[in-house]
Amino acid sequence: MTYSDIPSAQTLVLYFKSKGVKNIVISPGSRNAPLTISFTKNPFFNCYSIVDERCAAFFALGMSQQLKEPVAVVCTSGSALLNYYPAVAEAFYSNIPLLVISADRPHYRIDIGDGQTIRQKNVLKEHIGYSANLRQDVVHAAGEVKKYGKDLLEFSQEEIQTFNEAELKKAIHVAVNESFPVHINIPFEEPLYGTTDAPIINTPNESEEVGITSNIETWEDLSKIWTNSERKMVLVGVNPPDSISDETLKVLAHDANTLVFTETTSNVHHPDFFPSIDSIIAPIEKSGNKEELFRALQPEVLVTFGGMIVSKKIKAFLREFKPKYHWHIDPKKAYDTFFCLSRHLKADPNDFFLSMDSLEKPQSDYKSKWSKVKSDYETKRETYLKQIPFSDFMVYDQIIRSIPSDYQVHLSNSSTVRYTQLFPMQESLKVFCNRGTSGIDGSVSTAVGASVHHQSPTLLITGDLSFFYDSNGLWSSHIRKDFRIILVNNSGGGIFRILPGNEDTKEFATFFETKHNFAAEHLAKMYGFEYHQANNLEGLKGCLKDFYQESQQPKILEITTPREQNDTILLDYFNFIS
Amino acid sequence: MTYSDIPSAQTLVLYFKSKGVKNIVISPGSRNAPLTISFTKNPFFNCYSIVDERCAAFFALGMSQQLKEPVAVVCTSGSALLNYYPAVAEAFYSNIPLLVISADRPHYRIDIGDGQTIRQKNVLKEHIGYSANLRQDVVHAAGEVKKYGKDLLEFSQEEIQTFNEAELKKAIHVAVNESFPVHINIPFEEPLYGTTDAPIINTPNESEEVGITSNIETWEDLSKIWTNSERKMVLVGVNPPDSISDETLKVLAHDANTLVFTETTSNVHHPDFFPSIDSIIAPIEKSGNKEELFRALQPEVLVTFGGMIVSKKIKAFLREFKPKYHWHIDPKKAYDTFFCLSRHLKADPNDFFLSMDSLEKPQSDYKSKWSKVKSDYETKRETYLKQIPFSDFMVYDQIIRSIPSDYQVHLSNSSTVRYTQLFPMQESLKVFCNRGTSGIDGSVSTAVGASVHHQSPTLLITGDLSFFYDSNGLWSSHIRKDFRIILVNNSGGGIFRILPGNEDTKEFATFFETKHNFAAEHLAKMYGFEYHQANNLEGLKGCLKDFYQESQQPKILEITTPREQNDTILLDYFNFIS
Repeated sequence: MTYSDIPSAQTLVLYFKSKGVKNIVISPGSRNAPLTISFTKNPFFNCYSIVDERCAAFFALGMSQQLKEPVAVVCTSGSALLNYYPAVAEAFYSNIPLLVISADRPHYRIDIGDGQTIRQKNVLKEHIGYSANLRQDVVHAAGEVKKYGKDLLEFSQEEIQTFNEAELKKAIHVAVNESFPVHINIPFEEPLYGTTDAPIINTPNESEEVGITSNIETWEDLSKIWTNSERKMVLVGVNPPDSISDETLKVLAHDANTLVFTETTSNVHHPDFFPSIDSIIAPIEKSGNKEELFRALQPEVLVTFGGMIVSKKIKAFLREFKPKYHWHIDPKKAYDTFFCLSRHLKADPNDFFLSMDSLEKPQSDYKSKWSKVKSDYETKRETYLKQIPFSDFMVYDQIIRSIPSDYQVHLSNSSTVRYTQLFPMQESLKVFCNRGTSGIDGSVSTAVGASVHHQSPTLLITGDLSFFYDSNGLWSSHIRKDFRIILVNNSGGGIFRILPGNEDTKEFATFFETKHNFAAEHLAKMYGFEYHQANNLEGLKGCLKDFYQESQQPKILEITTPREQNDTILLDYFNFIS
Repeated sequence: MTYSDIPSAQTLVLYFKSKGVKNIVISPGSRNAPLTISFTKNPFFNCYSIVDERCAAFFALGMSQQLKEPVAVVCTSGSALLNYYPAVAEAFYSNIPLLVISADRPHYRIDIGDGQTIRQKNVLKEHIGYSANLRQDVVHAAGEVKKYGKDLLEFSQEEIQTFNEAELKKAIHVAVNESFPVHINIPFEEPLYGTTDAPIINTPNESEEVGITSNIETWEDLSKIWTNSERKMVLVGVNPPDSISDETLKVLAHDANTLVFTETTSNVHHPDFFPSIDSIIAPIEKSGNKEELFRALQPEVLVTFGGMIVSKKIKAFLREFKPKYHWHIDPKKAYDTFFCLSRHLKADPNDFFLSMDSLEKPQSDYKSKWSKVKSDYETKRETYLKQIPFSDFMVYDQIIRSIPSDYQVHLSNSSTVRYTQLFPMQESLKVFCNRGTSGIDGSVSTAVGASVHHQSPTLLITGDLSFFYDSNGLWSSHIRKDFRIILVNNSGGGIFRILPGNEDTKEFATFFETKHNFAAEHLAKMYGFEYHQANNLEGLKGCLKDFYQESQQPKILEITTPREQNDTILLDYFNFIS
């Protein structure tokens, strides 16, 4: 085993090993050579090379999301680190333990005109769980240090070592226990390429305590409210697959006083749940007796769990028709999304719902009434699909029907995740979308990273702007043959045609919709993907038949839809079911 | 003329107009609709649409660099803003007045679980001249504000208006007077798409004072030192074309005691100057009497002007063999690059050198001696070029010889800018490279942005990693037909083969060199470029013959060089001239 001869590089690498951090995504550089050498020459680590740091960080984020463990990104000094920032913010709001490691110049080389040198310390601090600023070793390159960095000599090498270990410990603790991204900045003095087979650092040997601190003692009063309420709503945000037990699902589904509203990204399923929130709410918004219908839908108790909610309509509704109680269940954090949060329950949702279950319940028609509405719009949706021309709406229906069991499905922002909410998705699929910041900036890279260790194949469904924005995500030697992309290309940001500003002007097409004529064919060739294309229903059905079959190359299916009709067809759907 | 009906949007747009900020680069979004509408519907502004915010910011930076005036970028809320950060850091260190405008959610919507919402206030603060955090209007959407943002009501609309104007004034002042990027964050409440033809805001009407504060009174003692010194060195960093007068050049060139060391990015030329620093220093480093030769080169007085220095060798030399005096001339800032800065002269370099000129000078052989060394290596370089195989070294020589007069030439980091230092470049060319952070992340976008308003055509010379990293820079409807790219593709980060860590291992090829097999052909097709390819000298000469001729499409010339031989041929050049 070969290590860098720089003690702080050894410390970091051995510390990561002792904590079981195995997956390291490295972008090329010279300043980070001490880390690159130590990680890549140590078979404990799985190392991945990604050149574009923006993609590298989203790739690591996708991997961490799937493994539910910290994954590290390592870059050189300078603007490289800043390219990580979009993914760091996504990780911050999606609670993904990304370990961001930036090699830095010695502090006395900052702001003196050296190349690839910026102010790296704490630069991500608005969206980070912890910023560890390691100290430079004094045993290494003592000549340079003595000349210009005299202040460093205030500390002995032993003190520096102790300080760095403590900082690393704090950083890993925050990543593992609080599921936040953390930033470790580590300055290195030249020479950077020296190695040794005998590290002078000992592997630390402590175990990390991970657990939920529950505030369970307060549940008795909640239980009373829950049992006696005739109008309860459970709303599930972004939620990892397999986190809610069958028993919990049964308890929730069988409660006649509880509406369970789910989204595609909730990853919970039951025939008695309500998976298309907007199909319930949009017709009410259009109705003459809107106020009355919203009052009939307004819950007394709202319980939420999971991350961000996609539906804007449910947010607007609950902000206006506030529940009497809003409890959010999450081991770590609770956002006051509806401006009426009454309790943050630090618990596992399963524990909470099972302990709330009670035989004595008042009877109400809360659920039966809305179940009727649901079955009505489901029937109407099928009718509507039969009468519309080829369009985004039809295409998303076809795509979702086509996905084989057990696939991991990644959705890009923002049309894609919104369209998929309108159609039922089969239970075995595991669905993900970067809803922390809801950006279009890293969906390809995230899906590729998420696919690497997954037992089943991965499908990315994406709009054209997200796809082209993150096309560098395809620049990766880690794309599996069973990786699939379905690109719904409506020649621009179709979402803007649905928003209120829609105008038939050149300015609108240029600055909002950002109309373009690109197709993915050339990128497919460049990155070694099989490429298929469809622009009508028959063609699409033909493509989808073989699309998921085994292949020697990953595949892209590009579906071209009519830019100027999609918005009308979507908006008409809501009229049709109203 | 149509404006957003939101007062703060009107204020910003009218303020920009009054200050002559004309060029606005907009990325699509809904939150920034009030700005997009107001800018695009006002014929005073030139608006550009770029989807990928990372590219948008570099595009604006390139444009600002050429126009020498502020250029604005405008984005929606969320991670969009973070994608600007690499270009913001480059602008910060290259003193380019980028105006970064981020639309934001109302403050009470931050950290409550809304989509596309992050902590935008001051998020760029480590690398920004000023962060203006505008206040939300209270006349607009008063209902929402009353419900959740009660604290906003502490201020009257008039107070908000006054505050916002003062913040905008400070921001523009810093951009114009200190040449720093500035960040303006502006929160908007829904509805976002309302318009009016009669803005309620009056155009402010003040003029901005711009000028150099010179500390000229202290030059008399410097003049004495300068006149009496027998060993003076002038070292020019990144410097805009046409900033040094012919008279100044003549004064400097005719001083027998002064060595003028220039780089490709210095944009100053004279036959008596020394344009290839490394060709002087590398042979000394290899010499048996290194110490003695360095002593012979060591200046007594070092005068620097311009931005960053590319040559690592001159930095290492001057840090070890420090001049007695180091004066840096710059109206704004002075870095202590060599750890011996004695004076920061806030002045125009022309004024300084012309006022230092004196008839009485001691005679020395300082310059004549090194001029002999220079003419020696120039002869040897020609001989060397005749005996080497096709390689990066030969290719850069050919490229530089081929460039027609008056072209604007953009160089990517980092092999490209280093190779070009080794060859003489004709005087009429205007040369640029992002040396503020020396990143590989935005060179395509910068060159495209720089070309838009330029009177002559633009050539980008780039390595393969920089080119593919910023390939989204080609996603632009603003690329002129006369835009040219020469891509030297050596299948990876060739620079790493020259650095000390070079190893013949799989890890090296994967994690340092990041070897790949991509060609630009597919991207050329996608983005509508003519594509040409060369992999030998004859082919290259053939391609270059027609390459600069008028065409219906912009052009890419991709030159493939042998990955495993380039480093040896470069290192052997330094042996050959030693």
